[in-house]
Amino acid sequence: LSFRVIRAAQATWQGTVSDGGGHIAVSSGALDGPYSFRARVDDVEQVTNPEELIAAAEAGCFTMSLADRLTEAGHPPRELRTMARARLEQVGQQFNVTRIDLSAVADVPGIDAAEFARLAEQAKDCTITRALAGTEITLEASLAAQSLAGG
Amino acid sequence: LSFRVIRAAQATWQGTVSDGGGHIAVSSGALDGPYSFRARVDDVEQVTNPEELIAAAEAGCFTMSLADRLTEAGHPPRELRTMARARLEQVGQQFNVTRIDLSAVADVPGIDAAEFARLAEQAKDCTITRALAGTEITLEASLAAQSLAGG
Repeated sequence: LSFRVIRAAQATWQGTVSDGGGHIAVSSGALDGPYSFRARVDDVEQVTNPEELIAAAEAGCFTMSLADRLTEAGHPPRELRTMARARLEQVGQQFNVTRIDLSAVADVPGIDAAEFARLAEQAKDCTITRALAGTEITLEASLAAQSLAGG
Repeated sequence: LSFRVIRAAQATWQGTVSDGGGHIAVSSGALDGPYSFRARVDDVEQVTNPEELIAAAEAGCFTMSLADRLTEAGHPPRELRTMARARLEQVGQQFNVTRIDLSAVADVPGIDAAEFARLAEQAKDCTITRALAGTEITLEASLAAQSLAGG
């Protein structure tokens, strides 16, 4: 029997896109709040949007995947930190997430830069990256200074 | 000049996948908390995971897209409610999001069922659906009883 789980979320909306608003909640309860059209195109405190949630999913998946690769290689990370920037762009009449840029800094005692670079590239092929086949995903990964010093 | 915005999120991780843990934050501030391997495969209160965030992004994008289609057709929704269920499944040696099932209920005064079904199907082709080209997305959409009664 193969492994399978369901992870869920719910969204609501009232009214028009420009004047109305909505709400997004995930089943763990970690996120439960408003979202809006304006939050997709402008910065609105505490109001989420689908694009930053895609960025969060990709950052989280890649970072856990990198921790897994590093651990298997005998170098569990002291700390990994990944920023994901999703670009929402007009393409003809559509708005597309044309790319997500990952930028990771890793504090990993005892690893050399070449092995780290190889594992980071492998980690990019994670569950959410494969789901996001319609958008380009780029990666810049570097070792923190304390790793290079043998920290 | 074409429209372009960046939406960002950050993930961190400390230690191994099994014993360590991480943190995910989106730049709006709407989500800022722990995530873990266990939360991907088991239910953990208030601990998020990449799959429920993908489900949230897809539910949010589809629901706003449907509000937009309905408004353009002269029927702004009183309320839309969409559940998204992302299936995380083992495929050979990999874990993939093999499908996301959308289930929407709409309270839309004055629309007939055929037009609603057509607009819902169109709304499925939204920004996040196009990004998630690596996973199947299904949709079941229905009108709430009060819409059918003309309420």
